[in-house]
Amino acid sequence: MKRIRIIDTTLRDGMHAVSHQLTPEQVALIASRLDEAGVGTIEVGHGDGLGGSSMQYGFAKATDREYLKAVSQAIKQTRLDVLLIPGIGTIEDLKVAMEYGAKTVRVATHVTEADVGEQHIGFAKKNGLEAIGFLMMSHMASPEKVAEQAKLFESYGADIIYVADSAGAMLPEDVKARVSAVRSAVSLPVGFHAHNNLGLAIGNNLAAIEAGATVLDGTVRGLGGGAGNAQLEVLVAVLNRMGYETGIDLYKVMDLSEEVVAPLMQRPQIINREALAIGYAGAYSSFLLHAYRAAEKFGVDARDVLIELGRRKTVGGQEDLIIDVAIELANKKARTA
Amino acid sequence: MKRIRIIDTTLRDGMHAVSHQLTPEQVALIASRLDEAGVGTIEVGHGDGLGGSSMQYGFAKATDREYLKAVSQAIKQTRLDVLLIPGIGTIEDLKVAMEYGAKTVRVATHVTEADVGEQHIGFAKKNGLEAIGFLMMSHMASPEKVAEQAKLFESYGADIIYVADSAGAMLPEDVKARVSAVRSAVSLPVGFHAHNNLGLAIGNNLAAIEAGATVLDGTVRGLGGGAGNAQLEVLVAVLNRMGYETGIDLYKVMDLSEEVVAPLMQRPQIINREALAIGYAGAYSSFLLHAYRAAEKFGVDARDVLIELGRRKTVGGQEDLIIDVAIELANKKARTA
Repeated sequence: MKRIRIIDTTLRDGMHAVSHQLTPEQVALIASRLDEAGVGTIEVGHGDGLGGSSMQYGFAKATDREYLKAVSQAIKQTRLDVLLIPGIGTIEDLKVAMEYGAKTVRVATHVTEADVGEQHIGFAKKNGLEAIGFLMMSHMASPEKVAEQAKLFESYGADIIYVADSAGAMLPEDVKARVSAVRSAVSLPVGFHAHNNLGLAIGNNLAAIEAGATVLDGTVRGLGGGAGNAQLEVLVAVLNRMGYETGIDLYKVMDLSEEVVAPLMQRPQIINREALAIGYAGAYSSFLLHAYRAAEKFGVDARDVLIELGRRKTVGGQEDLIIDVAIELANKKARTA
Repeated sequence: MKRIRIIDTTLRDGMHAVSHQLTPEQVALIASRLDEAGVGTIEVGHGDGLGGSSMQYGFAKATDREYLKAVSQAIKQTRLDVLLIPGIGTIEDLKVAMEYGAKTVRVATHVTEADVGEQHIGFAKKNGLEAIGFLMMSHMASPEKVAEQAKLFESYGADIIYVADSAGAMLPEDVKARVSAVRSAVSLPVGFHAHNNLGLAIGNNLAAIEAGATVLDGTVRGLGGGAGNAQLEVLVAVLNRMGYETGIDLYKVMDLSEEVVAPLMQRPQIINREALAIGYAGAYSSFLLHAYRAAEKFGVDARDVLIELGRRKTVGGQEDLIIDVAIELANKKARTA
């Protein structure tokens, strides 16, 4: 039987959907139910990974250490995974995760900046961890560029390469092109991380499988940044129907979703106007508020601002550009009026 | 530029999501905003179509006549469409719709029973309406069977054939197989109607296009029975990105969704445990409550009951079977315990 490995990131990416406010007890409960359901790997922590709890990224209800400790005591079979975005998290943070038994680290960089993850992958491998190179905002680079960056991660010692559609901006053809390119470039398993901004989280996972991906992300109830991730129980149902083995008990994750996770949610995980605008524009979700403010100030449509930012492949740290773009659009509007 | 025709069914299938309780004023407001956004065809009425307002299918807030009148006064450009399920609606009901300017009728039958729609298609064509043959629960028949039924509709005079995934049970490959088979069998445009129970409403629409479909259904905010339909504004965004022309102003439908429709919703349109069970099992959504009751009574899992009903291709009217299946499963459980 064909196998797909699932990494559950309810307790990391899903934290965005609850403003990182789950308690260690709630996190431990969900982790134990995921473990019982046969989910092989679970990722835990602040939505922005190790060290994410901060003024800039939002304070979590508890520290990395508190979450990791609670989960380490709750799980029996499942593998504990953490996300490390160099610049937000550090090797010191990773050492804390290792104290609590983390066995996998996903080193996440912007799709064109795998090189900033070299030392983290190296450290992880030297210390016996599974190391995953995770290329965020992969829609912003050509398939060839994504493949080049994947090769960098491979050269650092990564065990798996992930193509991440962080803005939920990819169409199935975009996913296939990038996963295929990475598959051809490296001799490692390839993973895919979806967001649902264009309603394609499940459809794009199927496209990824078609192109050779064998590791996929999901979250219970679809929790995640923006429009959320691939809904784990739906993904498992679809994979079951297609004859893939995941090792996950479908009914148990359905019950976990309905009985435990749904009551903890602050808002339903839907595709609202803002989430759709992000996916359509292919822009950073952190630009959203700035774009709406700038648009209001200069009398233009925030969606046009986001689309222009996406077109220019603007990245985090370039927030100044948002005002510039809004002014340019306002001037253009004045000229054509 | 490649064109896709969109039929909006927010005010018909979407009525299921609000228990058919929108007022004629609310329906007229949504219709006028869809018209302004350039949506070419809108379907209006009770969730189960003409004549649906009843004890059995749930009473709507207003009569067919009241809804049709309100909409006919609100629209300027858009084409008014009604759904007619023979056995629920009648030709007399269709005459009422024609009084208010209905120009399209979708005659909907179970996928193996196109013949019950012969007289309705014939009447519509004799009276100058556009007539669409709409094959519900298409996942229950083989592609060859669906094609055979499409040919029947064509022989009655239908202008378009729709493949409808009423339970949201199809995978992209299922959609492609059925749409392709119909395309080969008839010389008419082919349409596709999705449900989102497996998270594939948008993905399956792309599969339908790939197989040659040129008419697609959507609803604002994804409103619809079960897990809902393809979310109109998301579908338009994806089609825009792919270079298809729909004639619809994306920002206007996004605003309609956020400003008008979202505040009227009784519940968010999500994939909950029950909706997923229906899609996974490929069973009638009207079986849900009966299956849960029977399962509780006989100490089995309702999902197993639904899966068995789907496997047997049980159709509406065979509700007695639900108890039989629950008893069989309970006996089997007792034998293996």
